[in-house]
Amino acid sequence: MKHPIIALITDFGTEDGYVGAVKGRILTDLPEAYLVDISHQIQPFDIRQAAFCLNNSYPYFPDKTVFVAVVDPGVGTERRGMMVKTSHHFFVGPDNGIFSFVFHREGFQAWEINLGAFSEDVSPTFHGRDVFAPLAAWIGRGENLSKYLLPLREPQTFLRPPHRVGEKELQLEVLHVDHFGNLILNFHKNDWLGLEDVSELRVIVKDLELREIQHTFAAAPEGELLLCWDSSGFLQIARNQGNASRSLAMGVGDPIRLLL
Amino acid sequence: MKHPIIALITDFGTEDGYVGAVKGRILTDLPEAYLVDISHQIQPFDIRQAAFCLNNSYPYFPDKTVFVAVVDPGVGTERRGMMVKTSHHFFVGPDNGIFSFVFHREGFQAWEINLGAFSEDVSPTFHGRDVFAPLAAWIGRGENLSKYLLPLREPQTFLRPPHRVGEKELQLEVLHVDHFGNLILNFHKNDWLGLEDVSELRVIVKDLELREIQHTFAAAPEGELLLCWDSSGFLQIARNQGNASRSLAMGVGDPIRLLL
Amino acid sequence: MKHPIIALITDFGTEDGYVGAVKGRILTDLPEAYLVDISHQIQPFDIRQAAFCLNNSYPYFPDKTVFVAVVDPGVGTERRGMMVKTSHHFFVGPDNGIFSFVFHREGFQAWEINLGAFSEDVSPTFHGRDVFAPLAAWIGRGENLSKYLLPLREPQTFLRPPHRVGEKELQLEVLHVDHFGNLILNFHKNDWLGLEDVSELRVIVKDLELREIQHTFAAAPEGELLLCWDSSGFLQIARNQGNASRSLAMGVGDPIRLLL
Repeated sequence: MKHPIIALITDFGTEDGYVGAVKGRILTDLPEAYLVDISHQIQPFDIRQAAFCLNNSYPYFPDKTVFVAVVDPGVGTERRGMMVKTSHHFFVGPDNGIFSFVFHREGFQAWEINLGAFSEDVSPTFHGRDVFAPLAAWIGRGENLSKYLLPLREPQTFLRPPHRVGEKELQLEVLHVDHFGNLILNFHKNDWLGLEDVSELRVIVKDLELREIQHTFAAAPEGELLLCWDSSGFLQIARNQGNASRSLAMGVGDPIRLLL
Repeated sequence: MKHPIIALITDFGTEDGYVGAVKGRILTDLPEAYLVDISHQIQPFDIRQAAFCLNNSYPYFPDKTVFVAVVDPGVGTERRGMMVKTSHHFFVGPDNGIFSFVFHREGFQAWEINLGAFSEDVSPTFHGRDVFAPLAAWIGRGENLSKYLLPLREPQTFLRPPHRVGEKELQLEVLHVDHFGNLILNFHKNDWLGLEDVSELRVIVKDLELREIQHTFAAAPEGELLLCWDSSGFLQIARNQGNASRSLAMGVGDPIRLLL
Repeated sequence: MKHPIIALITDFGTEDGYVGAVKGRILTDLPEAYLVDISHQIQPFDIRQAAFCLNNSYPYFPDKTVFVAVVDPGVGTERRGMMVKTSHHFFVGPDNGIFSFVFHREGFQAWEINLGAFSEDVSPTFHGRDVFAPLAAWIGRGENLSKYLLPLREPQTFLRPPHRVGEKELQLEVLHVDHFGNLILNFHKNDWLGLEDVSELRVIVKDLELREIQHTFAAAPEGELLLCWDSSGFLQIARNQGNASRSLAMGVGDPIRLLL
């Protein structure tokens, strides 16, 4: 672990210098750190978007990568900070659901961060710089962190399975709208494989019915809606070379009917 | 080539985590890679903007830098992926015109990427992560890539020379609008040098005539339009401390008259 | 100084490739440079925002970090380029106030950059690439730079102290609006400590009076305004989980009354 990778996801934007402070602090504690920007453009306070962004990224990183994820509307309140360890990676951030997909997909251990073990200089509004950044650096250094960690039982998650409405219908919801306006639904390829005796599925969106699952956006005519699996295996509604979210006026949390 | 540089240009934005996936995948295949973000804020599907962005950047990078450029509306269709090699650099991305300026400026070799040589796990909608990223890593490792490459004759380009309307007039077009709103035209300093017996040029834009080519924006009064060469040598219409594109309501593809 | 850190702040955006050119140029002159993006999303020409961004970042970086800050509306005019050295860091950029906070907080030495010592290829509109980037690389290499530097007496600063209106009142101004819409005022925790015999303070904003200084945003009910110290020690007006600047329709330079 000569150049420990520390990957960053925040909703800070970059224009205020808060990301710079986090980077500087990590490099001061761990000069050989290799910093990777995943995103600093998460919508302010949008924990779900950050969780989704992390979900699309973390599986591809080398072992021992430390992810620092800071979308943290509750900073300074009772909300806990946490460290998570899976068999491949480390995660540091608030316990507010930001690691929902990690908990869903991986075996893991989780600890609460013991704020009392940090110095008095911790800013109550900037744990990214004063708590999560140094902790990530110390993980990268391979330090014994037991004094900074407390046991934690049930970390927060927002991930809900599809809701079964009848024998032939599931109620899905829009889990996420990506940069291209694709509507990503809480229905995974594995959910589909788990449904027995189902030969086709139909998605009802507004007064439209979408049937076939395409392999590519371009399988639909330009400007047309289509269904396909996103690159993480979730079902998505896309518009070929267009923006499905904008044209349908639909966003996160909106319900979608799936007929089996 | 101890720390191979891999530089990235995409239209992914960062908030979905797709850029993170590309970075993670490169670092998994080539842990000593040195990643450089050029841009992830290319307008979705805007191949010309990406080409221009690359044109402004690549000449300044060290030898052996690998550029991964992914603005790829045709991903999953018949459009070919490609690798390009010049005497200094490598380029990986779709064959859709994104490397137009490279072809214009450099001697080069180009190959089609042989998708059949990749594993079956390639996502049809995300060649950035599953094809271009690993290929860039393997270039960085100095591997023999012949099984992944096929011959390719005529790569795509969108770069058109100025259109001659008469003895004394060229019809130019706006090639690009930059971040500051400057209108960059398809007329290069070298085109100007190639015109014999021309002592002055006049640009007609709307009902205005611009004559002198200034050395700096500030050579014009604040808020005034001016002509100057951009930092790559193309003629541009700028507004000192203002936004020429917005105030003239002109954008990519709009025609401009040049009188000789 | 094996991997010299060079940290970048610009208003270039990334979509034009100008940031890429700066990075490429630094890596060509100093292949072992470790580049850190602080921001390229400074509002075009907004020197104050860049200064604030730098102020929030630079103190946390390791010794010998070189900061390249380029928000440079006067490029190509008489405005001077400069290099600044404090006991910990180096700074390179235009002499236009962008280093105001550094001058305020640190002992420093400053030099004018001697453009005459550079080659004739310097673009008059892009000193970021042709002057500041190579100079930063040469600092990182530990070179003797005396031929590139001239003495400089009084560098530009825009930082003004609060204006005393009477015995019991200061007129503050909004120094900066951050990404979350927090209004940051020109009143530092140290100014507060320097006021004797003052047991409480009241901030008058529009027809509202804010009294207590909170430790966290969440100390106020959701959607309510509050006062707190920002992470650099300046007083700020925030709205818990909201955007104070937008809801109050206030921005940089707007006056705020502080009653003692």
